[in-house]
Amino acid sequence: MSLLVVGSIAFDAVETPFGKRERMLGGSATHFSLAASFFANVRIVGVVGGDFGADNVALLQRHGVDTTDLECLPEGKTFFWRGRYDYDLNTAHTLETQLNVFADFKPKLSEESKRARFVFLGNIQPDLQYEVREQVKDAQFVALDTMNLWIETARPSLIRAIERVDAVIINDAEARQLADEPNLIRAARKILSWGPAAVVVKRGEYGAALFTSDAYFAIPAYPLESVFDPTGAGDTFAGGFMGYLASCGEVDEAAMRRAMIFGSVMASFNVEEFGTERVQRLTYAEINERFREFKRMTSFEEIPFERVVKALGPSAIKV
Amino acid sequence: MSLLVVGSIAFDAVETPFGKRERMLGGSATHFSLAASFFANVRIVGVVGGDFGADNVALLQRHGVDTTDLECLPEGKTFFWRGRYDYDLNTAHTLETQLNVFADFKPKLSEESKRARFVFLGNIQPDLQYEVREQVKDAQFVALDTMNLWIETARPSLIRAIERVDAVIINDAEARQLADEPNLIRAARKILSWGPAAVVVKRGEYGAALFTSDAYFAIPAYPLESVFDPTGAGDTFAGGFMGYLASCGEVDEAAMRRAMIFGSVMASFNVEEFGTERVQRLTYAEINERFREFKRMTSFEEIPFERVVKALGPSAIKV
Repeated sequence: MSLLVVGSIAFDAVETPFGKRERMLGGSATHFSLAASFFANVRIVGVVGGDFGADNVALLQRHGVDTTDLECLPEGKTFFWRGRYDYDLNTAHTLETQLNVFADFKPKLSEESKRARFVFLGNIQPDLQYEVREQVKDAQFVALDTMNLWIETARPSLIRAIERVDAVIINDAEARQLADEPNLIRAARKILSWGPAAVVVKRGEYGAALFTSDAYFAIPAYPLESVFDPTGAGDTFAGGFMGYLASCGEVDEAAMRRAMIFGSVMASFNVEEFGTERVQRLTYAEINERFREFKRMTSFEEIPFERVVKALGPSAIKV
Repeated sequence: MSLLVVGSIAFDAVETPFGKRERMLGGSATHFSLAASFFANVRIVGVVGGDFGADNVALLQRHGVDTTDLECLPEGKTFFWRGRYDYDLNTAHTLETQLNVFADFKPKLSEESKRARFVFLGNIQPDLQYEVREQVKDAQFVALDTMNLWIETARPSLIRAIERVDAVIINDAEARQLADEPNLIRAARKILSWGPAAVVVKRGEYGAALFTSDAYFAIPAYPLESVFDPTGAGDTFAGGFMGYLASCGEVDEAAMRRAMIFGSVMASFNVEEFGTERVQRLTYAEINERFREFKRMTSFEEIPFERVVKALGPSAIKV
C-alpha cells in the first residue's frame, strides 16, 4: 500500500569521535523514505532549495520514492543542520541550524498523496501535521513523531494532532516530557488516553517499546560494537516500522510487533555509517538476517511451573 | 543444589519521593538470599553486630536460609547505609555509610559451605571474593558482582577474581567502567576475554543482557507503573538468576536465559516496595505469573522472508 511521509529534507554536517561529514543528505523525511522504500511505495512531501541537486532527487527515485510532491524553491537554500556527538553517542549537540526554505514550509499534497493509506507525519510544527492528517481522509494508519521544541512551544496544537493519529512514535525522554510523567509506563498510558491506538517509544541503545491499550511489547536494540553516527536513527526506525505495516496492509498487534523488529533492524544499519550511507546500499538479505537475529537474541524456552517448583526441594513449602 | 552467598548484611535508611524508612533490613547478601530462597537452599556468609536482632535471623531462617555462617560480633554494630533517591530512581545518592563490623569482614566458611556447588560473591573487596572462591573447590558455577569503588581502587585484585569465576553480574555503567570501553557490547566482550563464560549486565528500567562467547540475549524490564525503592534490585536480580540455576542444576545457555527472566521477575517485585518488604511476602503464583508475562511481552511471530519480499511490489527489485 502507498505510504506518505511529510517531514524535513536537509543537509547535515556531522562530527562524531569516529569521523566527520561536511554536507550529507539528511532530514527526517529522507531517512524515513529510504528505510521505508525497502518495504513499500513511498511518496515524499517536503521542500528543498536550489542547492539540492538532481543527484539527490535521483537517489530517492532510485529507491522507488515518488518525488512528485517534493517542492523545490530555486531561490532558497535547503535546511541545514550541524551537530556533534561525543563518545556518549546518545546526545546530539546542535552547533548550527539554518532553517532556510524549511522555515515557511507548508506541505502541499497532490491528489494521489491525499489518497495514501499509510501516513507518517515527521517532526514538523504540529499544526502542519494536523492539516496534513485532515487532508488524507482515507488513511488506514497515521503515525506522528515530534520533538521537545513542539512539546514546549506548541503543546495544545501537538495534542490536537495526537488525538487524530493512530500511533505516536517518539523517543523515551520526549514521551516523559510530553506526558509530564517521569515513569515511562504511565507516560505512555497517558498518551494512549488522548486517542492513539499505539505509542512506540524509541530508546536508542536500549531498544524500543510498544504500548497499546491492552498489551506491552519491548525489544532490545540490535547489539552493535561500533555506532558511527546516530543521526536519523529514529526516522529510520519509523521508516522500517511504517514501511512494514504498509507492505502487509495490517495494523493489528501481531503486525505491529513485527514492525517494531523491522524498525529496529533498519535503525541498526543506519547508525553503522554516516547519514544514509549504509541504508543506501542495504540488501534484503541483510535485513532478513538481522530480523532472524532478533528472534535468536530474544527467545527463551518457557517451562511448566511444576518444573520450577519441583526443583525447589524443602523450600517449596512456600507455594 | 546448595547456593552460597557472601556479601553485606546491613540496615538501610532510605528516602524516595514516595516515602521513607529509617531502619530496614538490607545488604547485598540479604536481598540475594531472600530472592534465591524461592528457588534453592541458600547458605549466607556475612557479619552483623549486636544490634542485629534475632527477629532478622528468624526472618532469613523462615525463608529456608541457612545462617550457620552468619557471624555475629556482639560488641559491634551492623553495617549501616543511608541513601536518597530523587524522581529519577536510577541513581542512589549516598548520605551516610557506617561500615561498622563490615569494615574488617573476613568471610569464614564452614565445611558444608565449602562444598557448595553454586556461589555468589556479592559486592565486597575483591581479594575477599578471590579467597572465598578458592575455598569452594567443587563449585559448578560461581558468579561475582562488584562496584565502582573496587574498579577504581582494587582493579588488579578485581580482575584476578574475575578470572576465576564463571559469570560476572554487573550493572551497565560498571561494565563500561570496568572494561574502560563506552560501547557496552565491546565492554562485555572484553570482560569475557578475561575468563568468565558469561557476563550479565543489569540495566535497571531498561532490562538486562546476557553475553556469552557465542550468543547475546537481551530482555526488557518488567513494566512497572510505580517504582518505590530500587535499593537491592541488583542483588535481588542476582538471587533470582543464581537461585534458578541452582534449582535446575544446569548452566547451559538455555538455562541462563530462563535465569535472566527469573532474575528480572524477582527484581521487579523488589522495587515495588521498600527494602525486602515485597519479596518477603511473595508467592510462587506471583513469580509464575510474571514469568509468563515476560514471554507475552517479548514474543513476536517470525514470517518467512518470502512474505516480506512479496509484500514489496515493484520495489522488490532491490533483492
